[in-house]
Amino acid sequence: MDFYDDDETRSDNLRDEKQFALLRAILTDAKNNAPAYAKLYEGIDIDAIQDKTDLSKLPVLRKSDLTEMQASQPPLGGLTTKPAAEFTSLYMSPGPIFEPGSDAPDWWRFARALYAAGLRKGDVILNCFAYHLTPAGAMFESGAKAIGATVIAGGVGNTDQQIEAIKHLRPRAYAGTPDFLKVILDRADDAGADVSSIQVALVSGGALFPSMRQEYADRGITCLQCYGTADLGLVAYESAHSGAVGAGMIIDEGAIVEILRPGTGDPVPIGEVGEVTVTTLNTEYPLIRFATGDLSAMMDGASDCGRTNARIKGWMGRADQTAKIKGMFVHPAQVDRVVKRYKELSKARLVVSRSGASDVFTLHCESTSQDATLCEQIKQSIRDELKLSGDVALCECGSLKNDGIVIEDTRDYND
Amino acid sequence: MDFYDDDETRSDNLRDEKQFALLRAILTDAKNNAPAYAKLYEGIDIDAIQDKTDLSKLPVLRKSDLTEMQASQPPLGGLTTKPAAEFTSLYMSPGPIFEPGSDAPDWWRFARALYAAGLRKGDVILNCFAYHLTPAGAMFESGAKAIGATVIAGGVGNTDQQIEAIKHLRPRAYAGTPDFLKVILDRADDAGADVSSIQVALVSGGALFPSMRQEYADRGITCLQCYGTADLGLVAYESAHSGAVGAGMIIDEGAIVEILRPGTGDPVPIGEVGEVTVTTLNTEYPLIRFATGDLSAMMDGASDCGRTNARIKGWMGRADQTAKIKGMFVHPAQVDRVVKRYKELSKARLVVSRSGASDVFTLHCESTSQDATLCEQIKQSIRDELKLSGDVALCECGSLKNDGIVIEDTRDYND
Repeated sequence: MDFYDDDETRSDNLRDEKQFALLRAILTDAKNNAPAYAKLYEGIDIDAIQDKTDLSKLPVLRKSDLTEMQASQPPLGGLTTKPAAEFTSLYMSPGPIFEPGSDAPDWWRFARALYAAGLRKGDVILNCFAYHLTPAGAMFESGAKAIGATVIAGGVGNTDQQIEAIKHLRPRAYAGTPDFLKVILDRADDAGADVSSIQVALVSGGALFPSMRQEYADRGITCLQCYGTADLGLVAYESAHSGAVGAGMIIDEGAIVEILRPGTGDPVPIGEVGEVTVTTLNTEYPLIRFATGDLSAMMDGASDCGRTNARIKGWMGRADQTAKIKGMFVHPAQVDRVVKRYKELSKARLVVSRSGASDVFTLHCESTSQDATLCEQIKQSIRDELKLSGDVALCECGSLKNDGIVIEDTRDYND
Repeated sequence: MDFYDDDETRSDNLRDEKQFALLRAILTDAKNNAPAYAKLYEGIDIDAIQDKTDLSKLPVLRKSDLTEMQASQPPLGGLTTKPAAEFTSLYMSPGPIFEPGSDAPDWWRFARALYAAGLRKGDVILNCFAYHLTPAGAMFESGAKAIGATVIAGGVGNTDQQIEAIKHLRPRAYAGTPDFLKVILDRADDAGADVSSIQVALVSGGALFPSMRQEYADRGITCLQCYGTADLGLVAYESAHSGAVGAGMIIDEGAIVEILRPGTGDPVPIGEVGEVTVTTLNTEYPLIRFATGDLSAMMDGASDCGRTNARIKGWMGRADQTAKIKGMFVHPAQVDRVVKRYKELSKARLVVSRSGASDVFTLHCESTSQDATLCEQIKQSIRDELKLSGDVALCECGSLKNDGIVIEDTRDYND
């Protein structure tokens, strides 16, 4: 087997030990040099953070927090350990959210994903991620440089020119969104253009449907996914050996991933769907417990490709389930506060529907007790936390659907 | 005074000595390792190339040659000293013409232009050159990194997002085409957005009209131009000190510039308009006597900013003056062959017009003799070289318009 580095095959113990030693150094640096972390971690003993359980006590940073922090402390919210103008690059993603970038080798860590997809020194990659304002293009280019591959900065759109470039420069790989490759291949077919040089695709930033993966495979293109964000860089990746459907994504060695109950800071058990929350081991722009808003679940065991890190399932939807009920916004965090009031409750799902012209809802709670008094108490707690009245239904532990949904909106908006 | 390096203020003798020593090394390497140069320079004694006069004996490489060479020897025409897949990047410009790129520090040499525009470490630059397929964005980003500035990879278009980025990230400088800055400023005015952080603009890739430069100045923005191409990198630049109108562009220290009579390999005297032809001192992708198709003229003396290199005037039009006369293509090179047949002639201008429905033309020749016999002989030479009949008019030396035009087409195409 062939790995990008030894980190990929280290034992869980060694990984934890090394990652948490680095994390403590990063947290200490952040507390000293990044104003926002200085405030956020006031009174927290960094040296006591020895494992994931300790980590789970640190505050969660949400994408919405980031927007507010960047607005009140421009440009980067006080979350970096050096001034913005000391970074090589600055980017802007929709939100707007601003991100720093660097030309330090593989700063966003995508080299590991490219390597796992089978790409090597001497390969030519058509990089169809956007380079303008967003860091996506730069992220993959930086990773490609680290493995010694050559990049064609294709960017988005310009399908005919992409085909011209493929015909003449004969890249072996495509990097970009899952769907744009199909746009290129279909247009090339129509034009009778030879784009058969492309044998590998590393895709991200959108859903790769199994049918699409199969279609690429039928054309001789091995298509693998990776998962990352403009803020975090690489989070997880598929490996060519582990194959495709159901094999999951291996967590990057520079990231610590937790799956949290949406709206909370609490990790869910392995297998349960929740919000992907990531801690990056980046010394200049550390993001600690950054809740992505994406849903996924941890998988049992390790990949059969030999990489020992934990895996997550692919993207399973969005966690931002704020609903407007009777004119009031309800957040998953409010539901969580109701659940936390009772030791009997472990998990809940608020289902909103309509009765005539009125919004109604029921809070379904996994509970060790099915007592009617408990039910009435929970109703009162709902009134306290949500400023709304609703029903409560208690159910057996493990009986709620495992899809990460805390607020399910069943109202038909086409009435 | 403040210069990017000592090269900018060296004596002409020292510059020639250093540049030609480096050029000989590059030519030797190219002859040994770049197949196209091996063929082109067969039998040429590289060691004998000691100055510009020797250089002017080497063959000229035209943009059209490049297209043909790249088609017959893909992907880079055999003009590089290493394989395409050993470059960091590959690009495609309209033509299509393909260019290699590298993440070696300031590979395209734009740092010098940015520095001369007053940009320094710690400055933030909004880079509105395109990063997709073309190398323009990467060229300026690479230069900005070399001076320690921070780049916002703005790219082209997305005016509203560019304004968002300026408001939040407050770049001190804009780099991009001359006109797009005005689009941004006007839109920002309409939206009441504060984009006053921008104080410096380095523009390229289009005409900077004096009125536009003045408009920027009126807003407190110092706007300077530089000139380069996707193939060559930087060729010449303005300096902040030398000021604006009429000060010209200082030739880059990594380029040797000649001004040639269009269609020929012959340098014109200082002040005469001709085709900008550039030799880059690039060891991996040397372009030797690369005729850009752009017109300019050498200026007398040096810039008052203290930089000692020669200057060219700004962009003065295109040199590719191929015309179709009576259904036949006529190239400036054919006109040149007529001129070269007679020691009396120094320069000529073929003026095409229409007589009724027919194309007619007159070849105006600067001549030391006004003899009628000579006139008749030239007419015969025209028939030989152009396969067309036309008139000849002899005139005094120095009397033809100095605009680099060899074939002037006065036909009205709106008839």
